[in-house]
Amino acid sequence: MNYPTESALLTDLYELTMLHVYYKEGMTGHAVFELFLHKRPDNRNFLIAAGLDQALDYLENFAFTEDECQWLDDSGRFDKDFIDILKDFTFTGDVYALPEGTIFFEKEPIIRIEAPLPEAQIVETRLINLLQFQSMIASKAVRSSIAAPGKLLVDFGLRRAHGAEAGMLAARACYLAGFSGTSNVAASRLFDIPMFGTMAHSYIMAHDDERQAFLNFAKAQPDNIVLLIDTYDTESAAIKVIEVADQLQHLGLEVHAVRLDSGNISEHACEVRKILEDGGHPEIGIFASSNLDEHVLEKMSKAGVPIDGFGIGTKIIVSEDVPFLDCVYKLQEYAGTPRYKQSEGKITLPGRRQIYRRYDQKGILDYDLIGLADKQQHGEPLLIKVMEQGKRVDAREPLQEIRKRIDAQLKQLPEEFLSLHVSVESPIKISDDIKALMDADSIAQLCNTTGLS
Amino acid sequence: MNYPTESALLTDLYELTMLHVYYKEGMTGHAVFELFLHKRPDNRNFLIAAGLDQALDYLENFAFTEDECQWLDDSGRFDKDFIDILKDFTFTGDVYALPEGTIFFEKEPIIRIEAPLPEAQIVETRLINLLQFQSMIASKAVRSSIAAPGKLLVDFGLRRAHGAEAGMLAARACYLAGFSGTSNVAASRLFDIPMFGTMAHSYIMAHDDERQAFLNFAKAQPDNIVLLIDTYDTESAAIKVIEVADQLQHLGLEVHAVRLDSGNISEHACEVRKILEDGGHPEIGIFASSNLDEHVLEKMSKAGVPIDGFGIGTKIIVSEDVPFLDCVYKLQEYAGTPRYKQSEGKITLPGRRQIYRRYDQKGILDYDLIGLADKQQHGEPLLIKVMEQGKRVDAREPLQEIRKRIDAQLKQLPEEFLSLHVSVESPIKISDDIKALMDADSIAQLCNTTGLS
Repeated sequence: MNYPTESALLTDLYELTMLHVYYKEGMTGHAVFELFLHKRPDNRNFLIAAGLDQALDYLENFAFTEDECQWLDDSGRFDKDFIDILKDFTFTGDVYALPEGTIFFEKEPIIRIEAPLPEAQIVETRLINLLQFQSMIASKAVRSSIAAPGKLLVDFGLRRAHGAEAGMLAARACYLAGFSGTSNVAASRLFDIPMFGTMAHSYIMAHDDERQAFLNFAKAQPDNIVLLIDTYDTESAAIKVIEVADQLQHLGLEVHAVRLDSGNISEHACEVRKILEDGGHPEIGIFASSNLDEHVLEKMSKAGVPIDGFGIGTKIIVSEDVPFLDCVYKLQEYAGTPRYKQSEGKITLPGRRQIYRRYDQKGILDYDLIGLADKQQHGEPLLIKVMEQGKRVDAREPLQEIRKRIDAQLKQLPEEFLSLHVSVESPIKISDDIKALMDADSIAQLCNTTGLS
Repeated sequence: MNYPTESALLTDLYELTMLHVYYKEGMTGHAVFELFLHKRPDNRNFLIAAGLDQALDYLENFAFTEDECQWLDDSGRFDKDFIDILKDFTFTGDVYALPEGTIFFEKEPIIRIEAPLPEAQIVETRLINLLQFQSMIASKAVRSSIAAPGKLLVDFGLRRAHGAEAGMLAARACYLAGFSGTSNVAASRLFDIPMFGTMAHSYIMAHDDERQAFLNFAKAQPDNIVLLIDTYDTESAAIKVIEVADQLQHLGLEVHAVRLDSGNISEHACEVRKILEDGGHPEIGIFASSNLDEHVLEKMSKAGVPIDGFGIGTKIIVSEDVPFLDCVYKLQEYAGTPRYKQSEGKITLPGRRQIYRRYDQKGILDYDLIGLADKQQHGEPLLIKVMEQGKRVDAREPLQEIRKRIDAQLKQLPEEFLSLHVSVESPIKISDDIKALMDADSIAQLCNTTGLS
């Protein structure tokens, strides 16, 4: 069974039942929806927007197949007229969004959809699904890049990802966030990300002799000799590596690195580094995996543990400490009138919004003013037009460009934002124009629950 | 872009580099791999096996396309001979597994693969990916079923799932675990799961009048009238519902329920129940959503909060407290010799294993003996043959059968295992046959780190 990733049915039933009413009542006026986070997670001083490319693919290709229409018809839940509308349904709206790799904070729109109400509504579920996931992973992964500057970081997460698509998109998000590559072959192919990988413990265990396992690997993969040395006894295996490296040198081959995957990685790394140096092979690198995250990397980095690269899996690919973002998609305006939700604890900011980013004289982020898009403010407007009448405005952005953007934006953050431990307040302010659209109670509740002024 | 969910490239590069060596060295002997959990998560007294159907689909259809072979060839990493082998590569092995819905514990094999070494190796990554995810979600979701017996539970999670496939497979896993259905339309279609859904806040906000929004919905969806009442003021909306219900009664229509999605749900539910009863509409149910999990459900259930059903999203679909299982896939035997991993803290049990479940006189689980498959022990053997020479032994199992199995197995658990708060020890023992295959050091390390005897 091939699970659909493009189907228009990848949505909540309520989107369809609402559309049914909208068409019945002629409610097809111009609607503005924005996707944003209610709250920033405790462990994140900032977030990184990612997933826009996939979101735009989804919008451009949005359509119901004949089969899907037939199935909806057979469900008995909808009128024939409505099913007929779905047969020709496409997304024809305009889209404004943060370029991928843009740093953002809570309440700030990541994407704004402007379209006839039914078109803007139906895409809600999958847009959140796509944008929250990659943004969450990029925001998690960048912490490892910050914690271990200059080290080779590789995504090893596919096996523990939540399904295939999560593995694919997380490999992309990690790469955007500064990783050097992925072990995921399909992601390497689809996104043109460098791939890494050599051997598992089962490979060593299938051989009767560890040294023979190393030699066989070197012969078959002469440009990719990284030897896993912790299947039995790490230090004994490191000594075998020296002998193997000597042997291979005569054949013109080089052992690139050894890999550690269990026990006390820092201690083993120090022992192994000494063995490699004493053995006359200081050029052999040490690569480590097993249960890593940004906190372990930071600790090792500060302690100067002699490890050159890390394979990072589970904890990053599921964003262990923050496995979801509180992302919502809200109606901001309908038929020319600003709208906002007044439900307890879920107050939203009305209107068609823009983020105006303001910098100090050194080019460091001072604060973001969340204002109305139509009342231009001083500062850099962050949302740009990415789709017009259902078509992309620009070509697909190369991943390298997005990597550079993240790099540049990190340099514009005040240093305390880069801490993995200390939480800082969000640098956001709400414009008076927006407040003027709200009632006093809602403003008071918003200030109380968020600390915003 | 449609993300591949069946591709043979959904794997780690190291699987391919290992295969390259195996074929070069003629290491195509009979291998036995087993997939199991090193450790049970702290918050789970037991786990539920799920995802086998998808795993068997994957194995049955395993193949490299011509394009994929060409791409691997172009990578320059592999010999032509190896690429030629991949062109005709299929999975021809035998598979033994726990039927979906079987309760299991750490160290116990969920699936055993017996095949020529390369075939058994290459499927590692995706098998873990598929089996760990659904097992994790079923094990999380069943806690909600336990916490709120007799209530209607609906999966609302697609938007916060980690991608599309996660949303699809989680809807299936929740349904297996006793949920009544899902909001996910694609999952409803693919797996034939009942679907639920009515309206979002945006629907109410797009109308100028809340009452009119209710009436419009009732006209378009006369068999599905569930009205969202917390967009502005919950109790005022409940009073409007009474009036709407009176009006609709004259047309022969019934308001089925109201939905609460913000604020203090328990308090609002009590207020709203009173309004509905005082207003002469005790038949209208109350459905709640917003930030729910098994702990909230248990609290409401114990307090007798008058809510009839729950929409459960984010926290279940990402298994918030346990967002991954420590699942591994290990070589147990190669070319007739039992193998085990001796890495520090990661000792495994060697051999081709079986779980023998033993019950007390009342039919309640006493303990599981993990023994060797070939030395039959007293007790119910849990792993059954599900695939022979790459083909399924039995037809796809209907989801209803799996639901029944979970129900029956929960009744066989000692009551303390059902607690959401108190952790119990695992009821597993290791047979002497297995210990006889291990060295004394490894046994001692295993006992020290796991508390097993």
